Parts: sequence; structure tokens; C-alpha cells
Amino acid sequence: MRMERLFTLNDTQAAALGAGILGTGGGGNTYVGQTWLEKELRDRGGGCRIIDADSVPDDALVCCVGTMGAPTVSNEKLLRGDEFVVGVRALEDHLKARIGALLISEIGGSNALKPLIAGLQLNLPVVDGDPMGRAFPELQMDTFAIGGVSLSPFALVDSHGNVVIMDHVDSPQRAESYARALTIEMGGSAALMMPVVTGRVMKQHLIRGTLSLAEKMGHAILAARAGGHDPAETVAALGSGRVLFRGKITDIERRTVQGFARGRMRLAGFGAAAGQMEIVFQNENLIAWQDGRIICTVPDLICVLSLDDGEPIGTESLRYGLRVAVIGMPAARELKTPAALAFVGPAAFGYPDVTFAPMPGDLL
Amino acid sequence: MRMERLFTLNDTQAAALGAGILGTGGGGNTYVGQTWLEKELRDRGGGCRIIDADSVPDDALVCCVGTMGAPTVSNEKLLRGDEFVVGVRALEDHLKARIGALLISEIGGSNALKPLIAGLQLNLPVVDGDPMGRAFPELQMDTFAIGGVSLSPFALVDSHGNVVIMDHVDSPQRAESYARALTIEMGGSAALMMPVVTGRVMKQHLIRGTLSLAEKMGHAILAARAGGHDPAETVAALGSGRVLFRGKITDIERRTVQGFARGRMRLAGFGAAAGQMEIVFQNENLIAWQDGRIICTVPDLICVLSLDDGEPIGTESLRYGLRVAVIGMPAARELKTPAALAFVGPAAFGYPDVTFAPMPGDLL
Repeated sequence: MRMERLFTLNDTQAAALGAGILGTGGGGNTYVGQTWLEKELRDRGGGCRIIDADSVPDDALVCCVGTMGAPTVSNEKLLRGDEFVVGVRALEDHLKARIGALLISEIGGSNALKPLIAGLQLNLPVVDGDPMGRAFPELQMDTFAIGGVSLSPFALVDSHGNVVIMDHVDSPQRAESYARALTIEMGGSAALMMPVVTGRVMKQHLIRGTLSLAEKMGHAILAARAGGHDPAETVAALGSGRVLFRGKITDIERRTVQGFARGRMRLAGFGAAAGQMEIVFQNENLIAWQDGRIICTVPDLICVLSLDDGEPIGTESLRYGLRVAVIGMPAARELKTPAALAFVGPAAFGYPDVTFAPMPGDLL
Repeated sequence: MRMERLFTLNDTQAAALGAGILGTGGGGNTYVGQTWLEKELRDRGGGCRIIDADSVPDDALVCCVGTMGAPTVSNEKLLRGDEFVVGVRALEDHLKARIGALLISEIGGSNALKPLIAGLQLNLPVVDGDPMGRAFPELQMDTFAIGGVSLSPFALVDSHGNVVIMDHVDSPQRAESYARALTIEMGGSAALMMPVVTGRVMKQHLIRGTLSLAEKMGHAILAARAGGHDPAETVAALGSGRVLFRGKITDIERRTVQGFARGRMRLAGFGAAAGQMEIVFQNENLIAWQDGRIICTVPDLICVLSLDDGEPIGTESLRYGLRVAVIGMPAARELKTPAALAFVGPAAFGYPDVTFAPMPGDLL
């Protein structure tokens, strides 16, 4: 059974909005990618083929494409435009084999739409799903690395067309540290083709349907805007979650440390008895306290939306006085095993004393 | 005409000493490599085949092998031992072609002997020559880069067996900065296989006979030790140079900046009227002033030898009270063209106001 649908100009805005929600404060602005994708769709006509994981043959090779680096850089330092084509072709030459489909490396934030652009450029389908089901700041924080799949060989391409192939890397943490050092040297942002896996391995590890989920969330926001109501409840329900808090940002501490936006925000509820919320973040929102009690922690999703229009608010765009809803959603099942929590639980972000108390249910 | 000789256990000490001289204060300690090479020679018997550049076919592929990183690190963080084999094989797989001979990347310092070790391990001959005719701190400071030869693809291998292939790099400066960032992440030292060139290109750019020159210098030092006399005059004459100064180190400033040993030494001549010398260095000795007047500058070679035994003194081993001879030798012809001076003249080391006033003659 080969399931295929076309992703067209009608889908870009909703997908970008939903990817922003799933970015949980990080993952980078999705608007730049949206306009680029729209240009590619207009220039080429037609649409990008979106396929189900099951329609990929077990022995086909598939490859995640996206960018690595600080979102604050990649929002301003745009790609040249051919990096994904250059990188996929270089990997094909190196492997002496062809890539049959592309994967989304990270559905949350700016990496969500880039595989669709690459798919149009390379005339390859894109699988509906990703290995994070949200955004994470480091390469090893995905279901492939968690599942013990080798991340090498992989390719980095800079905006001058320079190509680096990491032919063999002995651990996901090493993949992260070597690629991070190169990305910084490449100007703070680079295209990343990683990992290359077989269809069989992809089906074992991919979190399925996350592109469709992002689109549904985006459509809910657009419908709420049209109807003049608040989309927070609907968006939360689509992700099996709930609205944790509504209030105003009263305090922000933010510093850039080793390329990450780290900090904390405080929110005051509306009305005297409405309580307080505090959220810490490393690019993405990590832990939320309500009136001093932990109410949601990574890998569960903590998303901040503008109350005015449902726009997802990245941690780089937080500012005093913003009126927001905070949504909590349970992470995808694959991120909550003991093995996964070693990669993406609170301790992996420097909170060894915080225990992950999962929200009920699963993202999808 | 195929000229070939065997480099055996009788040659290691002399080659290591001479490479130390040609290191001009930098390039790293040669003793660690000497003992490693001696072990490989003892374990395998026979010797390493040394060939002339002309005996390599024009269409054969040859490759420089060595290490990149701070000598202060690589003196203590030894290689695992198979890095050159892993790197050369990875490049061969990537290029779908075989490497026919190895080149020395840098005759000055610890990189001089590593290709001989790799030659024994890979059963490949090593060409007598290198693209520097001395030591230099950065990758782009060699006759291949100066001549416009692409340095990519090249390979870096760390002591965990991780392999990075720089498939395409658009300038020698970029090769330096990307490889430097990775080497630092690899622990400060990594094996480097770069560049891969054809026999034809190698013959156009290689400074020939520098391994033989190092061996001759080393033999001169060993003969002087046996005879109880000072080898400085003989060593200087072998490199077409002269003794610039004899004296005692009275002052040293040294700091580690971005992985380089930078600083300055002052020397006082013997006797009241003997004058002063001052030398600045960045790993290698760069500029020598005698009584306030510049007497020798990079790319010409400024070498400091112990007066006791002719031992070359690296800039990391300078200390108060050492009694030394300072030798000046003219650089190889290939380093003194206007194009070359842009890469290796005083301005390239941060001395834009110093004009290169070449010593008479050429190194060889």
C-alpha cells in the first residue's frame, strides 16, 4: 500500500504554525522556511509528495535533512539554497547508493519544512513523521540515537558549498560535538544530512504522522483566528494535552551560552488569585512550575502561545507584558522509555534532581 | 629511473635530530615519533622505502600524512597507532582509487617521521621531500596551497577511530579553520591526510630532498657529539646558512593563545661587548633582531641549538640560562616568491611592517 498526498501552497501556513507549536519555544522561526517553501512551490508548480512510513521499501535508503545551529543565526543568515541537494548528492556519491526518500529531522520549528523544500529540489517524497515529535537542541536527542542507530556517515554543507562527510563517528554524543564545532566554524548555521538509514530501520524508530499533526494544529489556529476565538484548548486537545496556564509575562532572564538561549520566564495569572508560573528553557521550554510545584517537564511539551492570535512564541521572542497561554502536551511514546529519558529527560538538560512525571497519554 | 633507498634503524636518530633543526623551534618534539618509528622498524624488520619525486608516475595518487594540533598536546596525547591506515583507506574508499606513495607534510618537527611509520604500516614508499622545507603552524602555509592546488578532499582521524572527510573545501584558509575546529574538538590532536594529489602535481610543488637534508644535519650533530665539538657551523652550512649568534637566554615571555605558543626570548652574547638578540615566535621562530636590527625573518629559518650537544631547542623548551647557538638559513626557493610570501611572509604572522630581507642563497 503506497499512501501519497500532495503538500501544496494551501498547506504551508498551517504547517508552519503547527511546527512552531511543536517547537516548544525552540527549533527556530518557521516563517522564513514557509516563504522559501512557498517560492519553491510557486516556481515549480504542483506540490511535494508526502508519503507514509510504511510505503517506503525496507531496503531503500532514506535520509533526514535540516539545518544545525543557533536559530538566532539561521533566522538571519539564510541558506544559499542548494545545500540539501549538494549534501544528499555527496552522501550518495560517498555511499555509492541512491537516497529514495527524505525524512524530517525535527518537526518542531524551522526544520519541519526544509525537507519539503529539498524534496521539491531533488524530486523525492518526504515521509510524514520525524524522530523527535517536537524540537530538541542537540543531535543525539532523537529516536534514532536513542535506539542505538549509528548516525554516521552524515554530511554538513555550508553556504559556500563546502561539504564535510563524517564518515565514521563512534557515538551520538561525538556526532553532536564534532558537528557542533564545525557548524560554529561554518558561521553558526549549516545544512545537515543525518542520519541515512534503511526503510526498515526508519519504520522501527520514526514517530509517525507528526507533519500531519502540525498541519492540524496550524489549521486550528487559523480557524480560531477567523472565528475570533482562542485556539489554545483545541491545539492542546489535538496533542492530547491541556492548557496549563493563562497569564502575562512579568520577568525574563535570557543569556546566550555556548550557542544556546538559556533562561527563565515568570508569568502572572490574570486576577489576584490566579497564581504564578515559572518556566526554564534551553532553546526549548524545559520545566514549568505552577505556584512552586512542577507541573510539566521535558520531554513533555511546554508551548507558549500568544493569547491574541495563537501565534507560537519562541524563547527568543519572549518579552515583558506578552499575554499568553501555556499548553502542556505529553511527549510521543518513544521518548518516554527509560533509555529515551537518559537522552531527553530532565537530567539530560542539567536537572538531575527533577523526576519526569509524565502527563497522561501520548502526543499521538 | 626509479631511485629507491631503505630507511632503517640506523637512520632514525639522525632524521629526528635534523627534523628538530628544521622545525625552527616549532613542529613538535621529534623524539616520540623516533621511538615509535624504531618500534615499527624492529617489529617489521627491513626498512621504509624512500623514493625520489621523479620516480612517481604522473597519474599516480600520492597523499601527505601527519598530525594536526598543538605540539604541547601531541607530545603527551599519543596516537592510537592505526590512524594513518584508517585515514588513507577511508580516502581511497571515498575516491574509489588507490594511493601509490606517501608524502611528508612538514619536514620540520614531529611530522617528519610519521609518514615513514605510515609507509611501513601501509607498505607504501615515502617521497623524499615536503611542501614546507621547515615547520609552519597552519595548513595553508605550504607549497601546494601557495600554488593554488585544492587541499580537498582530505581526512581527519581521531584516536577513537572517528573519520571525517572534508569532501570539498573552497579555500586553503577554510581548510585550516574547519580542520582546526575539529582537531580541537578531537582533543587537540588528530591525524591528517592532506592533500591527495597526482604525481604530476606533486612534482610541480614539492620541495625535494628535505628528508635527506634532515638526515645529513642529524648526522653532523651526532658526529660533533662524538668528536666533542660544536655542530652549529656544520649544520648551518648544510642549510646554506650561518651562525647568527651565540649566547645565553636571559628572558622568556610565552603564552598559549588559540592553541599556539606565542612569545619572545632575549639572549645575551658571551662577553661584555657581545651584544643582544631578541626572537619572537608563534610555535616557530619568526623574527630575530640583533642589537635592535632585524637580521632574519620568516620564511627564512631561525633555529636555536643547545651549545652543549647541538640538540635543537623547541620554543616550548626554552628556559632561562640555556646556552645556545642561533642559526639562520635561507628558506627553500619556493617559499620566497611574492605569491608565497603572502602565505608565509612576516605579514602572514601579524608583522605587516616587517619586510622580508632574504638571506643569500636557498636552503637546498
